[in-house]
Amino acid sequence: MNKASALVVLSGGQDSTTCLYWAIDRYGVDNVSAITFDYGQRHRIELECARKIAAQAGVSQECLPVDTFSALGGNALTDMKIDVASVPNAESGLPNTFVPGRNIVFLTYAAAWAWPRNIGNIVTGVGQTDFSDYPDCREETIRSVQQSLRLGMESNVEIHAPLMHLSKKETVELARDLGALDAMALTHTCYNGQRPPCGRCPACRLRARGFAEAGVSDPLLSWQ
Amino acid sequence: MNKASALVVLSGGQDSTTCLYWAIDRYGVDNVSAITFDYGQRHRIELECARKIAAQAGVSQECLPVDTFSALGGNALTDMKIDVASVPNAESGLPNTFVPGRNIVFLTYAAAWAWPRNIGNIVTGVGQTDFSDYPDCREETIRSVQQSLRLGMESNVEIHAPLMHLSKKETVELARDLGALDAMALTHTCYNGQRPPCGRCPACRLRARGFAEAGVSDPLLSWQ
Repeated sequence: MNKASALVVLSGGQDSTTCLYWAIDRYGVDNVSAITFDYGQRHRIELECARKIAAQAGVSQECLPVDTFSALGGNALTDMKIDVASVPNAESGLPNTFVPGRNIVFLTYAAAWAWPRNIGNIVTGVGQTDFSDYPDCREETIRSVQQSLRLGMESNVEIHAPLMHLSKKETVELARDLGALDAMALTHTCYNGQRPPCGRCPACRLRARGFAEAGVSDPLLSWQ
Repeated sequence: MNKASALVVLSGGQDSTTCLYWAIDRYGVDNVSAITFDYGQRHRIELECARKIAAQAGVSQECLPVDTFSALGGNALTDMKIDVASVPNAESGLPNTFVPGRNIVFLTYAAAWAWPRNIGNIVTGVGQTDFSDYPDCREETIRSVQQSLRLGMESNVEIHAPLMHLSKKETVELARDLGALDAMALTHTCYNGQRPPCGRCPACRLRARGFAEAGVSDPLLSWQ
């Protein structure tokens, strides 16, 4: 695999956009591409955001269809009949936006896309400090998935999660340092799918706190 | 997770059908269900085979759509424009039916299906002695994927691959011992998608050799 090129899993959110600029800084814009998954997400606006973000950054982007999670059902991210709950499920301790296996599948598809193109690095915006603490975003999981992909594809692909241990404040600081603040105006965060953002949902509040703590004004708000 | 129930990844082929009967023998028919993936496979007959096999065995079966591999393209299993090659790719050493990440994705979706249903076991027909030696069928890969799924879903799900180290001859013997020979008449193997099977493609030849070495006549041939 070509260790000088990278594929960024770009959702259209704040974290993956920061990762896109992290990858451009590290590998150079000509060696970076982005992949986005249309998995029937509640908020279609994310896909449009991802497209605009990649275009503004000057990297090629592919959007792959993933219809299986909608067919699996039972979660608030893809099932319109289920409202996003404000508290975790009592039994599993996980939020009802948890889609079992989502990141494992996305990383595997990203690696499957990278494989014939000889792209040696995959960059994902997941992190352990995410408020919802999805188990498939933890470092231990990502490391295990990397191992599964290396074995299953006979490759030395490397998964990077540069935000893994950063707080939201530190992620904003990283975006600022990478010159990615302008791109933040194009990102989508609101769990209620609103633009301008609702400002009340957990995702909006977490984002606002990160910008406030970093002493940076959110370009998404001033851009509206 | 309920360690008394199992989900079988059922493709409609000889191996996964043997695994279905292995699971029924081990967990009881009422505790077994099957999952099939419609990933745009070249031979649509496999899906019909899987449905009939599950019905005959008396287990419930779900067929999940997986449109992403067709969108990824570039392999002979889903891309009708690519013929199945008789020799491996010179560069990768892998057959052109290799779909990078296929089994990792299927096992992840199976686990995602099993998760809310509290099914503690997943059974797959992959094995190391498969003639094509796909790297995602090896024991080391399957063990790593199990670890990734356990971490990513916070579960103790177990992946069973009862055919992992069996030769085709031994797989036929196992099917016979499990009373699964009748079901073999419903399975599909031929890479050319023919029924009756072409008898000339590598998959047909491997199947025929297994039955011959086990001294068992293939019900698929006598059933036609």
